[in-house]
Amino acid sequence: MDGTKGEVAGPLQREGIDSGDEFIVFLPDGDGSPGLPARTRVRICVGQGTACPREAYATVYVGRCGGAAGIGVSESLWHALAPRAGEWAMVKRTPPPASMAWVRATMHGHALPPEAMREVVRDIAARRYSPIETAAFVAASAHGNLASREVAALTHALIESGFRLAWPGRHAIDKHCIGGLPGNRTTPIVVAIAASLGITMPKASSRAITSAAGTADVMETMAPVVMDAARMRRVVEQENGCVVWSGGLGFAPADDRLIRAQRELDVNAPAHIVASVLAKKVACGASSVLIDIPVGPTAKVRTREEAEVLVDLFAQVADDVGLAVRTLVTDGTHPVGCGIGPALEARDVLAVLHGDAEAPTDLRERSVQVAAAVLMLSGRYTSEIAAREAANHALTSGMARARFEGICLAQGGMREPPRARCVQVVHATSNALVRGFDCRMLARLARLAGAPEFPEAGVRLRVRPGDRVEPGQPLLELHGPSMGSIESAAGYAAVQSDLVRLDHKEGAVV
Amino acid sequence: MDGTKGEVAGPLQREGIDSGDEFIVFLPDGDGSPGLPARTRVRICVGQGTACPREAYATVYVGRCGGAAGIGVSESLWHALAPRAGEWAMVKRTPPPASMAWVRATMHGHALPPEAMREVVRDIAARRYSPIETAAFVAASAHGNLASREVAALTHALIESGFRLAWPGRHAIDKHCIGGLPGNRTTPIVVAIAASLGITMPKASSRAITSAAGTADVMETMAPVVMDAARMRRVVEQENGCVVWSGGLGFAPADDRLIRAQRELDVNAPAHIVASVLAKKVACGASSVLIDIPVGPTAKVRTREEAEVLVDLFAQVADDVGLAVRTLVTDGTHPVGCGIGPALEARDVLAVLHGDAEAPTDLRERSVQVAAAVLMLSGRYTSEIAAREAANHALTSGMARARFEGICLAQGGMREPPRARCVQVVHATSNALVRGFDCRMLARLARLAGAPEFPEAGVRLRVRPGDRVEPGQPLLELHGPSMGSIESAAGYAAVQSDLVRLDHKEGAVV
Repeated sequence: MDGTKGEVAGPLQREGIDSGDEFIVFLPDGDGSPGLPARTRVRICVGQGTACPREAYATVYVGRCGGAAGIGVSESLWHALAPRAGEWAMVKRTPPPASMAWVRATMHGHALPPEAMREVVRDIAARRYSPIETAAFVAASAHGNLASREVAALTHALIESGFRLAWPGRHAIDKHCIGGLPGNRTTPIVVAIAASLGITMPKASSRAITSAAGTADVMETMAPVVMDAARMRRVVEQENGCVVWSGGLGFAPADDRLIRAQRELDVNAPAHIVASVLAKKVACGASSVLIDIPVGPTAKVRTREEAEVLVDLFAQVADDVGLAVRTLVTDGTHPVGCGIGPALEARDVLAVLHGDAEAPTDLRERSVQVAAAVLMLSGRYTSEIAAREAANHALTSGMARARFEGICLAQGGMREPPRARCVQVVHATSNALVRGFDCRMLARLARLAGAPEFPEAGVRLRVRPGDRVEPGQPLLELHGPSMGSIESAAGYAAVQSDLVRLDHKEGAVV
Repeated sequence: MDGTKGEVAGPLQREGIDSGDEFIVFLPDGDGSPGLPARTRVRICVGQGTACPREAYATVYVGRCGGAAGIGVSESLWHALAPRAGEWAMVKRTPPPASMAWVRATMHGHALPPEAMREVVRDIAARRYSPIETAAFVAASAHGNLASREVAALTHALIESGFRLAWPGRHAIDKHCIGGLPGNRTTPIVVAIAASLGITMPKASSRAITSAAGTADVMETMAPVVMDAARMRRVVEQENGCVVWSGGLGFAPADDRLIRAQRELDVNAPAHIVASVLAKKVACGASSVLIDIPVGPTAKVRTREEAEVLVDLFAQVADDVGLAVRTLVTDGTHPVGCGIGPALEARDVLAVLHGDAEAPTDLRERSVQVAAAVLMLSGRYTSEIAAREAANHALTSGMARARFEGICLAQGGMREPPRARCVQVVHATSNALVRGFDCRMLARLARLAGAPEFPEAGVRLRVRPGDRVEPGQPLLELHGPSMGSIESAAGYAAVQSDLVRLDHKEGAVV
């Protein structure tokens, strides 16, 4: 065993250490340590020469539990290699991926040829990139100067890195909301409306990245969302629509990794948003996409100018990848509905579908607006008035509700969203007029309360902009799994004076 | 112990796992796992309320050796916290550093105010940034559009993040070579010449980053280089000069971390080079700096245009930080000297200082050229002719050699550079004219042979550009600690037909 060659072999051992999605190889210290110092990048191969060879790229740490011999691996790597008992692994130093040259070119501001993105994305999909290399690509490609041609190349590369669905004989429509607007959970309602009217909407949604809930999290409180593409297809063939988790489908694995790196860096560049969204829509088999971009001072997109950048980039790249796209720039000033957090938003969705008297009217109105746009995209409705009427009728008649129940049952069964064990009310302390909320702070508040890890956690608004409040009147409720999480959230709320924007001058009771 | 608060305390345990410079906290799995999932960023505090509280920022992994309780830490973190026996640690979830907002602003192409760089660098120096966040800063700031004002701000921030030396009553001169030119090891010779002529040259050099040897590595084969600032000062007060390792001095700790990240990404942007070099020169107490920029098709700087970018940026930033700077743009077409690798280059240095007949003339000539420029910078010589004469005389008379020996003894003792256990010769296979070498491939070859980890390893050239060779004639020697490393290097050499550029048409013996 020659250490200077940077190579070692041995029986694979499960170290029992969870390092998240980062692949770690633990090599023995001392004499067993074969010239592969900590932080070396290696290629680990299992089952060479068998019918099922597997390989992965990992980072070396030195030291084994109990000083054992053999090759230790972290949990995620163990699962990726799926070794049989006693199987041997070969570990060898590996050079940085050649495609990192493209990442460096981007760092230095050079434009990239189309094959560059393809090679980078292919390597990221193959988990060839270390978390640091992925972060460098994200940082370098976040630059506003990335030409639409390069964003299109990135989009194509993302599509090619995974597999694609097709819906023969159907015109599949998709929708996406840029996000940052708490409670704006129109998707399940829109899908139900559209599907009940014969429109195909095979919706694959994500979990929360930096927000308090993703559509997949909200839907999951009402029905199973984790399924493979075959199962998803059966739901859609039966009900015209579905709302499932995109992660279970194997689309664009590179996209998941990029999103994870973007989340760690809290980056949300237009280039990334457009490439990721459109790649997933194409992978889902959509021909047409509706993009909802809420604009507001505390939403993700803060100005109309920023929105225009996105609208233009979406249009250019969609054209390049063969998607028909329509963007709606909507009002993102205020949160939508009452609930923020998976289960709390689910209750708002159900209230709208059931036509409950206390269903949030803003959520209902936005859902009708978006559904109408989807109906127009389908080509079956040529006037907005007719489309709105049809959408409205689907709700009031109960057709959408029935279709939603059908979708839930087809996805594996409908259930009631969970309720939080602990609820604490935050009250007004003086007379005031509610001017509005800081949407970003609301999302952070819901996360502190425990969303989305605890689906029952979050925030429930008890007032709307324009309401007048008196001392002692509930402003909002904190829902959480324990008093600890509630205290954490309450502490944050206490120091964020702008979370609920109260106008005390205007608040005096007349 | 409320898991959702993201906080846990327990006795500190040394896990015995070396994760390099990345700080890892290992938390117990199962009931002990307190809502701090793998990859969470945390702040770990030890000795709160005592006279000596310590803290660090780390990443969580879940799982402990043998399922133990308590807080496990990786080796580097254990050393950083330096806990007493049985000391308790508190671990708490920590938000991303606020200064990351500046990194994101850079990612999106916005210019930064001066305090931005200060905050980012301060956080990096305090090890607040995860490796991923550091990589993002490196990638975002590598962009060619970073204004000279921002590079100056980065330089100031790097200086402020560490401590500075001063040389009262002395005019300290420093030099730096951009690198990428194998064997261009002029520094020890230049320092010896200048110091023997009464010029103060307190040289703090780095180890190899991406090359086969750094000046600190080469010097270390001849004398100790690891010392603190007080020791360095004593050497300089006694001998006028020194060549020590900058890493032992505590300058600009943020710079070390940035360099490490740049190395992992193989990035070498002008902004980083200029900021890092000038910050270290100011920290070293220099008033004047000579910068040598070798330009050649296979050097680090490939064209005169690239060199001009560096020359301009050096001039602007040096002016901002109060350094007098002079740049020499030199010929980087061919490697210098015979040896590539710490000990092999040291032998060339000693041969020049000793005036040996077989000393490489190109290394001698370049050293005289650089030394003359240093002598001019000092102000003591006003004509280049006089400066060259003085430099030449210092060599031929043995004054420089004696001063070099004095420096080595003052640094702790002079020793003979080690010799490699295994040497293999690569021969020519036909008649040819040697046109030149690919400098980057030569460096890679030397690294494969084992440099700089094995100081005796590397490459020794047996021919120079312009030589004619016959079949069987030695082209170069591979030096390594074992046949395994030699084979690794030989394999690379065999497939790189451009490593030694041979012209077979011109090679025929007349």
